[in-house]
Amino acid sequence: MLFAVRMSVTVPLDLDEDVKADILAREKSYSQDLQAGGEWQHIWRCVGQYSNLSIFDVAENERLHDILWNLPLFPYMEIDVTPLARHPSQVVAPSQP
Amino acid sequence: MLFAVRMSVTVPLDLDEDVKADILAREKSYSQDLQAGGEWQHIWRCVGQYSNLSIFDVAENERLHDILWNLPLFPYMEIDVTPLARHPSQVVAPSQP
Amino acid sequence: MLFAVRMSVTVPLDLDEDVKADILAREKSYSQDLQAGGEWQHIWRCVGQYSNLSIFDVAENERLHDILWNLPLFPYMEIDVTPLARHPSQVVAPSQP
Amino acid sequence: MLFAVRMSVTVPLDLDEDVKADILAREKSYSQDLQAGGEWQHIWRCVGQYSNLSIFDVAENERLHDILWNLPLFPYMEIDVTPLARHPSQVVAPSQP
Amino acid sequence: MLFAVRMSVTVPLDLDEDVKADILAREKSYSQDLQAGGEWQHIWRCVGQYSNLSIFDVAENERLHDILWNLPLFPYMEIDVTPLARHPSQVVAPSQP
Amino acid sequence: MLFAVRMSVTVPLDLDEDVKADILAREKSYSQDLQAGGEWQHIWRCVGQYSNLSIFDVAENERLHDILWNLPLFPYMEIDVTPLARHPSQVVAPSQP
Amino acid sequence: MLFAVRMSVTVPLDLDEDVKADILAREKSYSQDLQAGGEWQHIWRCVGQYSNLSIFDVAENERLHDILWNLPLFPYMEIDVTPLARHPSQVVAPSQP
Amino acid sequence: MLFAVRMSVTVPLDLDEDVKADILAREKSYSQDLQAGGEWQHIWRCVGQYSNLSIFDVAENERLHDILWNLPLFPYMEIDVTPLARHPSQVVAPSQP
Amino acid sequence: MLFAVRMSVTVPLDLDEDVKADILAREKSYSQDLQAGGEWQHIWRCVGQYSNLSIFDVAENERLHDILWNLPLFPYMEIDVTPLARHPSQVVAPSQP
Amino acid sequence: MLFAVRMSVTVPLDLDEDVKADILAREKSYSQDLQAGGEWQHIWRCVGQYSNLSIFDVAENERLHDILWNLPLFPYMEIDVTPLARHPSQVVAPSQP
Repeated sequence: MLFAVRMSVTVPLDLDEDVKADILAREKSYSQDLQAGGEWQHIWRCVGQYSNLSIFDVAENERLHDILWNLPLFPYMEIDVTPLARHPSQVVAPSQP
Repeated sequence: MLFAVRMSVTVPLDLDEDVKADILAREKSYSQDLQAGGEWQHIWRCVGQYSNLSIFDVAENERLHDILWNLPLFPYMEIDVTPLARHPSQVVAPSQP
Repeated sequence: MLFAVRMSVTVPLDLDEDVKADILAREKSYSQDLQAGGEWQHIWRCVGQYSNLSIFDVAENERLHDILWNLPLFPYMEIDVTPLARHPSQVVAPSQP
Repeated sequence: MLFAVRMSVTVPLDLDEDVKADILAREKSYSQDLQAGGEWQHIWRCVGQYSNLSIFDVAENERLHDILWNLPLFPYMEIDVTPLARHPSQVVAPSQP
Repeated sequence: MLFAVRMSVTVPLDLDEDVKADILAREKSYSQDLQAGGEWQHIWRCVGQYSNLSIFDVAENERLHDILWNLPLFPYMEIDVTPLARHPSQVVAPSQP
Repeated sequence: MLFAVRMSVTVPLDLDEDVKADILAREKSYSQDLQAGGEWQHIWRCVGQYSNLSIFDVAENERLHDILWNLPLFPYMEIDVTPLARHPSQVVAPSQP
Repeated sequence: MLFAVRMSVTVPLDLDEDVKADILAREKSYSQDLQAGGEWQHIWRCVGQYSNLSIFDVAENERLHDILWNLPLFPYMEIDVTPLARHPSQVVAPSQP
Repeated sequence: MLFAVRMSVTVPLDLDEDVKADILAREKSYSQDLQAGGEWQHIWRCVGQYSNLSIFDVAENERLHDILWNLPLFPYMEIDVTPLARHPSQVVAPSQP
Repeated sequence: MLFAVRMSVTVPLDLDEDVKADILAREKSYSQDLQAGGEWQHIWRCVGQYSNLSIFDVAENERLHDILWNLPLFPYMEIDVTPLARHPSQVVAPSQP
Repeated sequence: MLFAVRMSVTVPLDLDEDVKADILAREKSYSQDLQAGGEWQHIWRCVGQYSNLSIFDVAENERLHDILWNLPLFPYMEIDVTPLARHPSQVVAPSQP
């Protein structure tokens, strides 16, 4: 089940540099584990913004909330969720897993 | 070069059914040709909306404008374009072409 | 899987009365079938508005889109979808099915 | 008398952890008492948000204001209230209490 | 139970003058009956706008929806409803019923 | 001359409790004096909000600005002013002073 | 008593040219009479817009509403009213009446 | 060349009172010098707001920016600029300089 | 004197094709004359939109309004005007006229 | 490939003056290097705002993001990006480099 998620980050200007570095390292690792696991399918940087557009493929709403709520950057994010469905114009690739 | 594009369609309620069917058929064919060609990478339906979220991979801005401007549904669409870049947290797949 | 859906209706002022009555009758029947089937769990009128707030319980995004897209009033509606999850403060009723 | 209430929480990033834990514990208990009493009929988490959608069934406006104003998280919330009425398409369950 | 209601009117520019006059006459009569009955407590014109701010005192949400839904101008209105409660700073008049 | 005024209050979370209590006491007293004097005709709490809707009857714009500017809570308020006029549908009470 | 009023005009694209010319002629004459009478103190065109910013000096709210409501272009306008007061930094001209 | 400028002030609640008094005194003097010089033609207080609506008559854009950028309150202001032109309905006073 | 102008076009879907072609031809010619004359310095298409971003260099506000008001597409446009000034970081080209 | 970029700056009121001066000096130098290199084609101050409108000519999205992300003022900026394309009405200068 697919969802488009836009995450916009506002890190406080006075956040301690070490604390910030630690959060960002954990965020990256957290994201890459979920990418490796197949649930976080895409992540793109929005040009000129501290934000990303991501596509998630999860079993259900609860799982998506769980993933987002536990993002190390969650307290600094504004998040926008759009549930997606198959589009009738989509070309189905022959061997798409 | 990647772009996220959100297209929202408002077909006039009194549009002739044959005209409408023709436009929709041409829209689908137009989209599928570009998907086959690799420039229109993804198209998803936004749940409960007459709109889609698409990802384009084009050589330059001019080409993206050309594609969107010539959509058969263009006169009925509101379009929002977001240029994308690679995200530092993105996992690079070993054999991604 | 739960979703909150707000539907706001704008029927054209010059819509033929018989056509309108037919659409509304089909809308009501369509809604009540889905209520009886358990997928459309709640429907409330928003006071002073031609709109409703509904709660759906569906198997997946595709199903929700299918239900909304086929509403007889869909061409006259603006629809807003919010995916829901269980709230940690929710009291679990002893015998809630 | 039914109301839909959307509560969005913004806890200050520098709030003392003990103070925060105490507020959240009192909020949960406060909410569950009202759920047990039947006035707070539903509470759902909005996916990816620190916010909830709730349905209240209260005797009058004064009572709803009283409930919301005394939420332990009230000073940290943005609240949106929508009065609800019975929808003509609602199926009436035979033995609904 | 008090509610503030803002009603903004957009009458189509090509509405037949007789039809319009009839609707306006019925609207005025409808409003004055409810004012006489005590449910429509105040109605003020917003300066420079085709809109009014009104205060209603009704027994419950259902009654308010019923009143608004049956306004002769309802199909031409955008309506905004704000539930009101007693303010702690309000001076209680000695003999206010 | 009537005006509708909506005042929304945001008291800083770290405001000293004594300072806050003093401001609120002065605000209440200030409001009640103007109510007693007839210029502040109505004040209602907006349900679930730290805000009020008020009706003022003042001799001129200057007087209204003077009243609002000197509210003890003014530095913490967002204020929205709507000039009002008599509505043609208003029922004139026989002995309304 | 001063008010700033912004008027934005949207004339329907299919309005009969004679009807339009007549409305515009009456609008101009109406405005100039009020300018001559001193109530319509200023009128400026907003660059690149079919809209104006005006300053009115009227005895009371009722009079301002009366003036605006009877503008020949009123049915085609969106109007925004801001009550004004004397600014403490304003230089008082020696012989300003 | 005329411009309408709306300036909205947000002075931090914890700004030192002496610093604030100094800024306000310099702001007033700065404004009055420009009023005396004829470039700052009008300044009105918006009722109930810490904001003003002003009319400037300057030789060119650069000059207007220079004036606004050097306002003592500039760091605390949100500013909105509207270029104005002569309105075709404006009555030309016989001896207007 | 520089201005950034964003023009967004909405041509009615039922506009006669010949009328439309004529307007567009006149628009193009009108724009190119002003480009040749040096007042319309830049015009860019916004990707995926029926709108442009333009830069004008005109003697005064009146002239800019005159240019925009007489655009053949003016009745179909929404226009947004931003006055520009020299930026302190701008590199001055050696022989820039 | 052209992009219009609007950058709006909000420097914290309590930022150390030396730190601020250093950031601004680095920002100016950074901008001027890119102007000299031809990628930052235009930069204009928006009148009355701490913001600029800029035109960039870059090889691809990645490069634009890189430029913007590394602006010394980036943490204090709100940035809006609009991809541009050639406009069909644009006059092509004979010897435009």
